[in-house]
Amino acid sequence: MTYLERIRKPADVRDLHGSELDVLAKEIRDFLVAEVAKTGGHLGPNLGVVELTIALHRVFDSPAEHIVFDTGHQSYVHKLLTGRADFSRLRKSGGLSGYPARAESDHDVVENSHASTALSWADGIARANQLRGDDRPVVAVIGDGALTGGMAWEAVNNIAGGTDRSLVIVVNDNGRSYAPTIGGIALHLDALRATRSYEKVLSWGRRALQAGGPPGRFAFEALHGMKKGLKDAVAPQGLFEDLGMKYLGPIDGHDVLAMETALKRAKRYGGPVIVHAITEKGRGYTPAEEDVADRFHAVGAIHPETGLPVAPSRFGWTAVFADEIRSVARRRSDVVALTAAMLEPVGLKLLAEEFPERVIDVGIAEQHATTAAAGLAYAGMHPVVALYATFLNRAFDQVLMDVALHRAGVTFMLDRSGLTGDDGASHNGMWDMALLRSVPGLRLAAPRDEVTLRAAVNEAVEVDDAPTVVRYPKGSVPDPLPAVARHGSIDVLRRHSGSPRVLLVGIGAMARTAIDAAESLDAHGVGSMVVDPRWVLPISAELTELAADYDLVVTVEDGLVTNGIGSALRDALAAAGTDVPVRSHGIPHAFLEHSSRAELIDAFSLRGQDIARETLAAAAALWATDPVPEGTEP
Amino acid sequence: MTYLERIRKPADVRDLHGSELDVLAKEIRDFLVAEVAKTGGHLGPNLGVVELTIALHRVFDSPAEHIVFDTGHQSYVHKLLTGRADFSRLRKSGGLSGYPARAESDHDVVENSHASTALSWADGIARANQLRGDDRPVVAVIGDGALTGGMAWEAVNNIAGGTDRSLVIVVNDNGRSYAPTIGGIALHLDALRATRSYEKVLSWGRRALQAGGPPGRFAFEALHGMKKGLKDAVAPQGLFEDLGMKYLGPIDGHDVLAMETALKRAKRYGGPVIVHAITEKGRGYTPAEEDVADRFHAVGAIHPETGLPVAPSRFGWTAVFADEIRSVARRRSDVVALTAAMLEPVGLKLLAEEFPERVIDVGIAEQHATTAAAGLAYAGMHPVVALYATFLNRAFDQVLMDVALHRAGVTFMLDRSGLTGDDGASHNGMWDMALLRSVPGLRLAAPRDEVTLRAAVNEAVEVDDAPTVVRYPKGSVPDPLPAVARHGSIDVLRRHSGSPRVLLVGIGAMARTAIDAAESLDAHGVGSMVVDPRWVLPISAELTELAADYDLVVTVEDGLVTNGIGSALRDALAAAGTDVPVRSHGIPHAFLEHSSRAELIDAFSLRGQDIARETLAAAAALWATDPVPEGTEP
Repeated sequence: MTYLERIRKPADVRDLHGSELDVLAKEIRDFLVAEVAKTGGHLGPNLGVVELTIALHRVFDSPAEHIVFDTGHQSYVHKLLTGRADFSRLRKSGGLSGYPARAESDHDVVENSHASTALSWADGIARANQLRGDDRPVVAVIGDGALTGGMAWEAVNNIAGGTDRSLVIVVNDNGRSYAPTIGGIALHLDALRATRSYEKVLSWGRRALQAGGPPGRFAFEALHGMKKGLKDAVAPQGLFEDLGMKYLGPIDGHDVLAMETALKRAKRYGGPVIVHAITEKGRGYTPAEEDVADRFHAVGAIHPETGLPVAPSRFGWTAVFADEIRSVARRRSDVVALTAAMLEPVGLKLLAEEFPERVIDVGIAEQHATTAAAGLAYAGMHPVVALYATFLNRAFDQVLMDVALHRAGVTFMLDRSGLTGDDGASHNGMWDMALLRSVPGLRLAAPRDEVTLRAAVNEAVEVDDAPTVVRYPKGSVPDPLPAVARHGSIDVLRRHSGSPRVLLVGIGAMARTAIDAAESLDAHGVGSMVVDPRWVLPISAELTELAADYDLVVTVEDGLVTNGIGSALRDALAAAGTDVPVRSHGIPHAFLEHSSRAELIDAFSLRGQDIARETLAAAAALWATDPVPEGTEP
Repeated sequence: MTYLERIRKPADVRDLHGSELDVLAKEIRDFLVAEVAKTGGHLGPNLGVVELTIALHRVFDSPAEHIVFDTGHQSYVHKLLTGRADFSRLRKSGGLSGYPARAESDHDVVENSHASTALSWADGIARANQLRGDDRPVVAVIGDGALTGGMAWEAVNNIAGGTDRSLVIVVNDNGRSYAPTIGGIALHLDALRATRSYEKVLSWGRRALQAGGPPGRFAFEALHGMKKGLKDAVAPQGLFEDLGMKYLGPIDGHDVLAMETALKRAKRYGGPVIVHAITEKGRGYTPAEEDVADRFHAVGAIHPETGLPVAPSRFGWTAVFADEIRSVARRRSDVVALTAAMLEPVGLKLLAEEFPERVIDVGIAEQHATTAAAGLAYAGMHPVVALYATFLNRAFDQVLMDVALHRAGVTFMLDRSGLTGDDGASHNGMWDMALLRSVPGLRLAAPRDEVTLRAAVNEAVEVDDAPTVVRYPKGSVPDPLPAVARHGSIDVLRRHSGSPRVLLVGIGAMARTAIDAAESLDAHGVGSMVVDPRWVLPISAELTELAADYDLVVTVEDGLVTNGIGSALRDALAAAGTDVPVRSHGIPHAFLEHSSRAELIDAFSLRGQDIARETLAAAAALWATDPVPEGTEP
């Protein structure tokens, strides 16, 4: 039985000693590489925090002493040490979540995998503890990348202001988020890292001392305490101490005992302490260590020996955008792209290779990206902000008040919109249309295939007096769906030979679903026409007028059905005094468990046959007293 | 003719010298006190930046060299120096905006009066300049309070990372936003301020030298340059230099020539520079200087001699909340309140006086307030986050992903919801319902009077597994509107004796409007019933079922009509397969010019008589082929 197999709970980790911990770390790495190779997942970040997580669970008594992971994609080791060893269905329906999940374990606190929240969570918990007179420490683990996010600094400002709440902030500094971390924070952490040689000397002393076992460790701690004065003199305490926060480090995050020593000191301190741990993303797995781009941040299923994908990556929509924005930039020297620490995932790498000065990585800072884009537009550029759809939530106020209010020509490209599935509740890009519908002047396109995506990118950058948004889903681009006719700006995808009573509106990638539904309706003798408005916000007068000619309108969208495009069309019809019934289909108003996109489509009755079935039921109810639809069996 | 009267453009300010500038400053202060006393407005912040703004316009050539004001409530002096001397209709329809406004002047850049955006705007403009090979400097003026906002730090991180963009960041440090600034940033600025004595010595030397006129000033600059080495050695450069940014200061912000000298040095530097100016909010106006609470941050019309309000302040809704939350806190020791630097404006002062440890001021940091509240709730508290409605936009992602996803019992109190009017586009609290409708599990109440506000506060804090929101407008509480009956949880405010065909749904303070409309409909022989659901999100099954019994439903709300409660009811009816026509009335989908609330209500046809008129028209259109409504004249 391996050490890993013996661990059922954190206390079991505390029973191991010395070299046993090194063996455990090795076993965990081997386990992660083997398991994540099968399922896909966040491999690199977890290989980087093996020792750090072991040390956390040796020093802090979770769940009584809460450990909050920022972003949460680095919680696999934590899961292993808290009794969750079955990774066979990781990120699959019924299996372990790829992030902390309260439903899985009392050891998990925060499920939100949007970055930079952990310090605020931890401060809230610590304040509650303090109000009750409970001096339990709270631990937050945050990456250097997440420190570029504004809300982390709001929390730092609150925590640092001379408080005595017992808060241990572990900065997991691997010098990168997806891409290398940018900006002043990164430079400062670099400067701190430069004194690492001091810790190495200490580390050597420690190894010499601890050879004697537990008493040696006491001696080491005494020595370490003695050296504290020296350390304060030579280490650049810098920024954190300027703000009034205690700083410990830098510590070798791959040295369990060094981490343990630092965490114990931090725990004893009783106030807020930064523990600065230096780690390597992908540590101990050669293919990851050699991947300078993103160190295997997130992988699909891979071959564990080579690290190569089992199935070729097919981020089709992203690749089309990557190609098209480069073409646009060749033609238009005013086009500048911005990314929030995700150059490659959002498809800006090709552009950056050709026009490095015209791609700006702002860090995990969607608010700054958006408002800086407003500034760029004011000064004559056309900025293109490329984000995952779910992360736009962070910049709603800036889209509204900086971009739209100032009539700035800024284009937002929202990748991973709609159901993304396996990353769970906080990664589904299902909120964008509901949110953006409130923004006056904003125009949003939902292309259905490669041709319409390329067209939308080009149309969007032509608008210089309002925000434009182009949204597209995760995954491969479907087969082309050419229009069979045009109705003004609206694409007609399928006509019915007779005089159809149902208008099917397919939004974006759901255009195919609408066609499937129409075919199924045909089989039941209910005639319909299928259209794709392509630009779906605001609802065009053309669409409202067209819809008014039908007895029933059915919309299908890959977004929150509440506040969605169907709802917007219903409102537009009511505002025009035309109360044609609209039946809208989309993502239900709930947070979604992790699952595959296909399973979710199925569960939410969003297949063509489901839409057809519900449309027939709606038609039957509405037309109960009407003549029977053409060809319907009585 | 005074100096002020001679100034038509910034170049005129550059023609003045020495003591003429002191006279100008005095004239500006007298003007502001006299004018703002008549109209109301942001007096304190503008009295604090008189010399700073004069110096800015002497050193930078606006509008070619852009000056961006953060929040913008301190732009009155800037307006005076850029040709806008008519303050007689300040913040009134047709008069000057209380913030920068591009429609008023080319010298104005940013109209968004939400805090902490200026650095991002300026960085965007500077990047655009740089891409074009244009080395014009860009200036941002930001208060120490706004530096507590996360997006300012996202910008600092971008600007500080070793860039060479020509950016001058003036930190206008008066030690406060509304209330004194909190946290680590404030402590650090305090530490920097402590070296002010050094600048005083310099300042003395400068005065001695400049007595000789312009040649003396050259000598002073030479001396100042020589002393730079000394200065770098003695001043705590601290945080900003840690991040790689040049720091100049602290400077006496009320000394025009000291400011001018510092700004010239900053302009010459060619990269990002912080100029740290120490100012006093309310400077030179005794009543403001003696008001330790908020230094006359924003005032209604006041008597200029005494500084006392002309009409007593009647922030009725706020006062009711202030009283009720204190009662709740006396009863419930787990209730903790959070404010984003607006303790008094949101009505938490009474609570803070009685339970100081249970009121948390987080700075201008709505994101942190919201997520820390989720942490507090997780650890057993019931947090109450009190904000102006418009500022909740900043925390949408945190409401969704930290509070709602984690089923945290957090209550949000949204003051100044709906039309606020005179502060213009970015202060209207018109977005909250449209946004929050997307949040699964969230419940929102819109009380209509004092009794229902007190009830809503109590009901909200009883919910421990979901976010609750209570929204109420600016101004005085209307007369009580007791229910004449109850329909489940719905208050019936007015019954019709017959069998009415119209259901009027009055949301919050618009309940009175719905009653007015019903009376007017009666006069035209159209029967209606008026209800107030009080808890308006999600739409209750009771309301949907009730509405289904009518031929026409009319909703009136003090919020964005797009995505509003009327829209939500229409969707709920469609989802239930009941397509009763819903005519929704609310704030149109646009950014609003500053104006009074009454003028806006009028302009948007939101008076009772307007609703009645449009309802009659809708009824006539819908019932064209129906029997004539009871009692209607043919």
